[in-house]
Amino acid sequence: MTTWQQVAEAKRAQREALLPAAYKVAADKLPPAGTDSVIDFARTCGVLSEREVEITETDDVSVLLARLASGHYTAVEVLEAFIKRTCVAHQLANPLTEIHFEDAREWAAELDAELKSTGKVRGPLHGLPMSVKDQFQIAGSDATIGYISYANKPSKSDSVLVDVLKRAGAVPFVKTNLPQTIMYSETSNMLWGTTVNPHNRTLHPGGSSGGEGALVAMKGSPLGVGTDVGGSVRIPATLCGVFGLRPSSHRYPYEGAINSLVGQITIPSVLGPLSRSLSGLTEFSKAVLAQQPWLQDPQTPSMPWNTERFEHARTQKKLNIGVMWHDGVVKPSPPYERAIKQVLSTLGSHDVVDFEAFRTIEMLEILGDAFCADGGKDIEAAIAPLNEPLGPCFSGIGKREATGYEVWQANKRKLAFQKAYLDHWNATAQQTKDGRPIDVLIVPGFAYTAVPPGNEIYIGYTGIFNVVDYPVVVMPVTKVDPKVDGSAERTDFLNPDDEKWYGLWDAEKLVNAPVGIQIVGRRYEEEAVLGYAEQIWNAFSASKAG
Amino acid sequence: MTTWQQVAEAKRAQREALLPAAYKVAADKLPPAGTDSVIDFARTCGVLSEREVEITETDDVSVLLARLASGHYTAVEVLEAFIKRTCVAHQLANPLTEIHFEDAREWAAELDAELKSTGKVRGPLHGLPMSVKDQFQIAGSDATIGYISYANKPSKSDSVLVDVLKRAGAVPFVKTNLPQTIMYSETSNMLWGTTVNPHNRTLHPGGSSGGEGALVAMKGSPLGVGTDVGGSVRIPATLCGVFGLRPSSHRYPYEGAINSLVGQITIPSVLGPLSRSLSGLTEFSKAVLAQQPWLQDPQTPSMPWNTERFEHARTQKKLNIGVMWHDGVVKPSPPYERAIKQVLSTLGSHDVVDFEAFRTIEMLEILGDAFCADGGKDIEAAIAPLNEPLGPCFSGIGKREATGYEVWQANKRKLAFQKAYLDHWNATAQQTKDGRPIDVLIVPGFAYTAVPPGNEIYIGYTGIFNVVDYPVVVMPVTKVDPKVDGSAERTDFLNPDDEKWYGLWDAEKLVNAPVGIQIVGRRYEEEAVLGYAEQIWNAFSASKAG
Repeated sequence: MTTWQQVAEAKRAQREALLPAAYKVAADKLPPAGTDSVIDFARTCGVLSEREVEITETDDVSVLLARLASGHYTAVEVLEAFIKRTCVAHQLANPLTEIHFEDAREWAAELDAELKSTGKVRGPLHGLPMSVKDQFQIAGSDATIGYISYANKPSKSDSVLVDVLKRAGAVPFVKTNLPQTIMYSETSNMLWGTTVNPHNRTLHPGGSSGGEGALVAMKGSPLGVGTDVGGSVRIPATLCGVFGLRPSSHRYPYEGAINSLVGQITIPSVLGPLSRSLSGLTEFSKAVLAQQPWLQDPQTPSMPWNTERFEHARTQKKLNIGVMWHDGVVKPSPPYERAIKQVLSTLGSHDVVDFEAFRTIEMLEILGDAFCADGGKDIEAAIAPLNEPLGPCFSGIGKREATGYEVWQANKRKLAFQKAYLDHWNATAQQTKDGRPIDVLIVPGFAYTAVPPGNEIYIGYTGIFNVVDYPVVVMPVTKVDPKVDGSAERTDFLNPDDEKWYGLWDAEKLVNAPVGIQIVGRRYEEEAVLGYAEQIWNAFSASKAG
Repeated sequence: MTTWQQVAEAKRAQREALLPAAYKVAADKLPPAGTDSVIDFARTCGVLSEREVEITETDDVSVLLARLASGHYTAVEVLEAFIKRTCVAHQLANPLTEIHFEDAREWAAELDAELKSTGKVRGPLHGLPMSVKDQFQIAGSDATIGYISYANKPSKSDSVLVDVLKRAGAVPFVKTNLPQTIMYSETSNMLWGTTVNPHNRTLHPGGSSGGEGALVAMKGSPLGVGTDVGGSVRIPATLCGVFGLRPSSHRYPYEGAINSLVGQITIPSVLGPLSRSLSGLTEFSKAVLAQQPWLQDPQTPSMPWNTERFEHARTQKKLNIGVMWHDGVVKPSPPYERAIKQVLSTLGSHDVVDFEAFRTIEMLEILGDAFCADGGKDIEAAIAPLNEPLGPCFSGIGKREATGYEVWQANKRKLAFQKAYLDHWNATAQQTKDGRPIDVLIVPGFAYTAVPPGNEIYIGYTGIFNVVDYPVVVMPVTKVDPKVDGSAERTDFLNPDDEKWYGLWDAEKLVNAPVGIQIVGRRYEEEAVLGYAEQIWNAFSASKAG
C-alpha cells in the first residue's frame, strides 16, 4: 500500500517538474535565509527582462488591464512575466501547489488572437494572469486543500469561480498553498510544505490563504483569490502587506470549490480577492458580478454590481468613521495602533468616533460551536484513507459532537448576536456629530503581526466579521520597524491571553512584518466598503507621496 | 394551577370583547353553514355602509393607495370600513387572533392629520389597513403562534416587519390565525379554534397562514402578511383564491417574528404578502424595501427594489415559459390542469415548454430532515409548560434526533440539490426556440384544492421552492365547478399516495374551492417574477373581461 509520505513526495516531484529550469535561480544566487525582505529579489535575479519587471510591478490592476486591453501588453507576454516571477517567488517562499502554465499559455494566446481578430476584449479581466487558492478546481489538476488523501483525483471541471474568471478574460495559471483542513491561520501541510512570509522569511504568511498572501506580495500574481471563514483572506492580506476583500456570504460564487466542514452553514466560508492594489479588489468584484454568477451558483444572490452605491461611497463628502482600537480581550501588537493613527491623521474632516468592542468572548464561542458541531468527524474522515497526520487546525476533534437540537440553539445564539451587533453599530448614531451611524469601521487587521510558524492562533479581530457577515477591505499601512516600535512596553494586560500574545511581540525579530487595517462596511454592501476604502486609501497614499 | 383550557378560554373571551357589538351580525341573520361562498355576505349584512362596501371592495391596492394619498378616502374611514368587514368575516370564518382596533384608530388619525398638515403621505403605504399573521409582534398583544403556553406574554416591541410597515404608513389592525407549531397546511389550534374557507365553509383555508388567506379573501383586509417554510403563504393563497408571494429567504425582514424551530436554518422560513390584487404584492415589496429593512434585520440582504429588473420583466416581449404539469409523485386535482390550460390559452406568442418534475421524493426527504433534525425537542419544549395537547403538525417528535455531523450531511445534500435544480432549470435552454432557459415556470398551486379540515397534508408542489429558495407568485385562476370538473375520472395512478389524494377529489363536495397557479422565478429575483406575473395576469384577466 502506498503511504502518505510516498504520495506527498510524488506530488511535490510533479510540481517541481512543471517549473521551467530556465526560470530557476541557482541555489548559490538565492538570498540567505533570515529576516530580510525578498519581495524585490526577482527584480534583479536575472530571470526577468526589464520589460517583465515593469509588467509584474504594475501593481495597479486597472492600469494593467488597460494596457492589456489596448494591446500595449499582450496576454502572452504578461502571463510569461508573471510565470517567471511566480517561479522565483516559489523558490523563496513556497507558495505554490498546482501548476497550470501550459493551459494558461494556451488561453493567453487565444485571448491575444481574439483581441486581434475582433478588436474586442473577451471581458473585463482580459489577459490578466490570476492565482487561486488550492480549494478552487481547475480541470486537470488536483484540489487537495492540503489533504494527502485528496491527491491524484484531478478535477473534471472548473469551479464556478474559475469558469467565471475565464469568461471574464482572466488567465488562471497557478494554485496556491493553504493549511491542511483550511482551518488555521498559518500555511503549512505535509503535502506541499510550509509557505513563509516574503517580508521576513522567519515568519509565517498567515492563513489559510497564505499561499496567495505570499505570492501576491512577491508580485508573482497581480490578483489572487482566497477564502475566509474566520479571517483566511484578511489574515494573510494583513500579514503579507496586500489588499484583501472578505465579501458577505455567497456574494461571489463558491460553488464547486473543495472545502472542509461542508454542510456547516452557520458561518459560511466566502471567497475574496487579494491584490497589491485596491483596484484589484474592485476590478475583481465588478468582473465577477458582471458574469451573473447566480446563474451557475445557487447560493449566490442575484445582486449585480451596484454602481450607484459604489459611486456614492467613493464621493461621499463627510464620512462617519468608527475605530475599534482593540477587541477587549487581546490588545493588538503596538504597530496596529500606530497604523490606525497614521491613517486617521491623513483623513481630513471626517467624523471619527471610538467603537466599543462587542462581546468578543461570546463571538469566539459562537465560531467554535459552529466549526466543531461535528465533533471533528469531517476532518477525521478526510485524513483516514492514508492515515495521514493531522496538522495544526481548529476542529471539533476531541470535542463532543453536538446534537441536532444543539446545532439549532447555536444557530439561534448566532442570529441573536448578529441582531445585537447591528443594534450596536446603529447606536453609534449617538456618538456622531450628524446623528447618522458610522459608515465604516476601522479595526486592526489582526491581533499580532506575522510571527514564526508553529504558534497558536487568535482570530478575534477577524472572526467577528464572519459571525456578523460584514464585508471588509484589508488595507496595508506600514511595517514593523524596530526604530519606531521597539520602545513600546506594555504591562496593562487585560488577561493571561493578552499577556501571552504580547509575549510574542519583539520588534527586532518581527522586523519588516507588514501591518494592515480592516475597513468594515454593512452586510452585502461590498460596493460601499470598496468606495469608502478608496477614499481612505487615496488620502493615506497621498500623504505618503507628499 | 391554571389549565391550558382556562388560558385558552380567557384568551378567546378577550378577543370577543374587542370586537364591537355594533359590528356583529345577529346569529339568525348569518348565512347557514354549508358549501356556499360567504365572501360577499358582508356587502349586504347591514354592518357596512355603501361607501364602506366600495372601500373594502377596492381590490386593487394601488388604487386604494392612490385614493388614500389624494385624500379621496381618509385613513380613518378606510380603517373603519375594514374593521367592520373584518368583524363580519370573523363571525363567518374565524380568521382572527389578536385585535388592535384601538391602536389602529389612533395611528390612522395621526396619518390623516399628517397628510392634512404637511400635504405629504407618511410613506408608500399611507393609510392602508393591514393584517399580519400571529407570528408578527405588535407591541401590547401576545404572539402565541397557536401555543397556549405562549399566551399572556405581551410583546414589548414591534417585529421589524411591523415597524417597517408602520413607517411606510400602513396601519396594522389585526393578527390572524395559524396552526399550533405553524408546521401544517391547515389552520386550527386549541387556542383560537379552526379557521374555515370562506368560499366553502366545509373546507379548510390551507395553512399555515390560513387566517390571512381567509381574511384577505373575504375583503376583511386589503393586504396581509404570512410566512412560508413549506408553502404556508402559497397554500392559503391558492386555496382561498387570492394572490400571494413567497420571496427568497430573508429578502423581507423576519427579525422579531415569533417562530417554531428557531435555529433551523437549512430551509429558512420567509414572509410574504397576500392580497386580492397583484398590485398588493408589488406595492408591499416596493414599500418594504424602500424602508431599508436591512438596517434593522441582520439577515436581510441590502438589496433595494430593482426597478430596472421589474420594468424589464413586465415589458419583455417574448417570454420563455416552462410548465410543470405534475410533480411525478402526486398528480394535482383535475381543475389545476384546467387552470393552467386556461391561462396558457390567453398568453399569445410566448414560447411554452414542458418542465420535467425534478426528484420530488428526494426534495421531500430534504425538507423532512431539515424540519426534524431536533427530534421534536423544540415543539416538545413549547407545549410542555401547560401540558397542552399537540395539534396535527409536521415535527421531529417520535423521530431520532440527528447528530451535528448528520445535520451537516443533510445541509450538504440540500446544497447539492439546489445546484442540480439550477442546472435542470438552465437546461430548458435546449427546449426553447431562442435557446434561452425559461424565464418563469408555471406549476399547480397545490396538489389538491381545499378539502375538509382534519386531513393529512402533501406539500410537494410548494416545498420544492422552499428547498431551492425561488420566489413564487400565486395567482388565482378559477374555482371547482362540478359542471366542468365533475366528469374527470382518473385511473392512471403513479403510486398509492397519488391514489390516496385523488380519493379526496369530489367536485360536488369541493364546489367553489379556488384553484390557483404558482409562477416561479429565479432566486432573489422577486422583481422579475412580479413583472412576469403582471404580464400573465393582464393577459388572463383581459381574456376573462373580453
